[in-house]
Amino acid sequence: MRLAPGATVAAVGSRSEEKARLFAADNGLDVAATRLHGSYEALLDDPDVDAVYLPLPTSLHVRWATAAAARGKHVLLEKPTALCAADLDAILAACHAAAVQFMDCTMWMHHPRTAKMRETVDDKDAIGDIRTINSVFSFRANEDFLENDIRVKPDLDALGALGDVGWYCIRAILWAVDYELPKTVIALRDPVKNRAGVLLACGATLYWADGKTATFSCSFLTNVTMDITLVGTNGTIHVTDFAIPHEEKSAEFHVASKSSFAELDIGWDLPSKHVVATDLPQEALMVQEFARLVQGIRDAGGKPEGKWPAITRKTQLVLDAVKASIDKGSEPVEVAS
Amino acid sequence: MRLAPGATVAAVGSRSEEKARLFAADNGLDVAATRLHGSYEALLDDPDVDAVYLPLPTSLHVRWATAAAARGKHVLLEKPTALCAADLDAILAACHAAAVQFMDCTMWMHHPRTAKMRETVDDKDAIGDIRTINSVFSFRANEDFLENDIRVKPDLDALGALGDVGWYCIRAILWAVDYELPKTVIALRDPVKNRAGVLLACGATLYWADGKTATFSCSFLTNVTMDITLVGTNGTIHVTDFAIPHEEKSAEFHVASKSSFAELDIGWDLPSKHVVATDLPQEALMVQEFARLVQGIRDAGGKPEGKWPAITRKTQLVLDAVKASIDKGSEPVEVAS
Repeated sequence: MRLAPGATVAAVGSRSEEKARLFAADNGLDVAATRLHGSYEALLDDPDVDAVYLPLPTSLHVRWATAAAARGKHVLLEKPTALCAADLDAILAACHAAAVQFMDCTMWMHHPRTAKMRETVDDKDAIGDIRTINSVFSFRANEDFLENDIRVKPDLDALGALGDVGWYCIRAILWAVDYELPKTVIALRDPVKNRAGVLLACGATLYWADGKTATFSCSFLTNVTMDITLVGTNGTIHVTDFAIPHEEKSAEFHVASKSSFAELDIGWDLPSKHVVATDLPQEALMVQEFARLVQGIRDAGGKPEGKWPAITRKTQLVLDAVKASIDKGSEPVEVAS
Repeated sequence: MRLAPGATVAAVGSRSEEKARLFAADNGLDVAATRLHGSYEALLDDPDVDAVYLPLPTSLHVRWATAAAARGKHVLLEKPTALCAADLDAILAACHAAAVQFMDCTMWMHHPRTAKMRETVDDKDAIGDIRTINSVFSFRANEDFLENDIRVKPDLDALGALGDVGWYCIRAILWAVDYELPKTVIALRDPVKNRAGVLLACGATLYWADGKTATFSCSFLTNVTMDITLVGTNGTIHVTDFAIPHEEKSAEFHVASKSSFAELDIGWDLPSKHVVATDLPQEALMVQEFARLVQGIRDAGGKPEGKWPAITRKTQLVLDAVKASIDKGSEPVEVAS
């Protein structure tokens, strides 16, 4: 946020002013220049705050995102955006009614690599029709995380690994098919849950009406892995760090198009490596884009950009279907619309 | 075969001597020094043939592999080795009874990269327990293939893409888990078949008793893709050309172990690239190994190496279960043993 052009951290709200002060100091904010609020209400009542970044546990999103919208604050909301699509709809309705911008914090969407990959995916000659998608997002949480993190607590982030890392897989898959919703979702069997019933590892296969399929796996229990693999009739795209690039300043993806065998025993076409540079981390680019939209509304009479809430909602609909399939023992679940 | 130390092409058998002659000439064999047989029976009756390489359509495997074994010929059999495990068992029984070596032609098993990856997979500190496996093998067949190739004909290679490219995925998955059979297999929905009912694209998820899962997709309809991704508790392995290395003389794989985030906005550990060189193509290495085993039996009173038929059988058992699940509309199928 401090790196994002067009944005200023005007205030911090926490459950006490002392906590707000500690947060500001810990995060390199100018404590003297940042207003510190001892409650979320006080932050939302601050007239010089245009927008809020809301990283609270998911169970608190409906209450505070709708409250923010009701006070005319634009909402940048951490993912998973809600525990279910009905909750998200309440948030989106509040944002719509208040004509404020809504955006979720799927940060990798804002890396210039993603735009470059979009061009490649859209090149029907190079890639053709995508038929098979695989995505994996996992990291190996330590004991402290598995005991204490909000993402393993049923009253805070009840969707666990599905809501956290699974969110990215689902978004990546939807991104790859230009947000066409799958028709049916079937969870992988044997999801891993903690004693409280929160998901630590799970996955699903997504089926589209035209026969294409996507499979994802997400986990708090295996080594850091961030794959998205797109297999099209004409080409294949591989990314192994899609959510957080290995290196901040440049990000790679690999494309093989119309690959052919020389002879079976002497190999085939080497994929081409594409490197996309950026001066700013993707998180700063996300805040910059959000600030640009907010400024357009505040200063130029613009309207909220509808694509962001629409993408969020589709992600949440698929997530809901996966959760429902898990709850039904991996039965097929139709994706709502 | 011509490149493999220890092996000589002594004879070619075909449905006519003329076809055998054409084959020999087309493939750079010394026609004067190679015996040409106008029938498979004549080849099997040739007393100076130690072993046969049997690349006939799968529907002919039982007949000719058992005939070869009955005449004391060692059998190097193309994959898929049989239309079902019962057929394979007839072949293996014949080989066992005749004390001849059996090996299937899964050539990438013999690349030194595979041995190097085996060491990495077996390094529990580096990789830990593998929990998630993804494999894709596809190539985009042209119109001539889709009309005329034996692999789209119900009377020749009725298993289609599952038997051809799917075989490799299943073998790679079994290889990764040291040949522990999965308990249950569920085919992906919506397999693609041609008018004759032969599979052109399909996939499945495999479930083990300990909760690990593997998903594979195989297809004649999408761009060349040959992925195996292994996600363990401690590490991740990526290979994108597992069956046929991009380059003949050297093959890569990528390992990330105990990856950690620096900070969320500045990236994480770069995987390490391992390059394994070979002087001989993997197909020659396969023939060399087969010839070594045959020589040991013929000249040194050795016994057939049991690991090769055992691995083949497990691959076929999983393939059978996938086929059964496809035939039952993606119902779960228990893997036989």
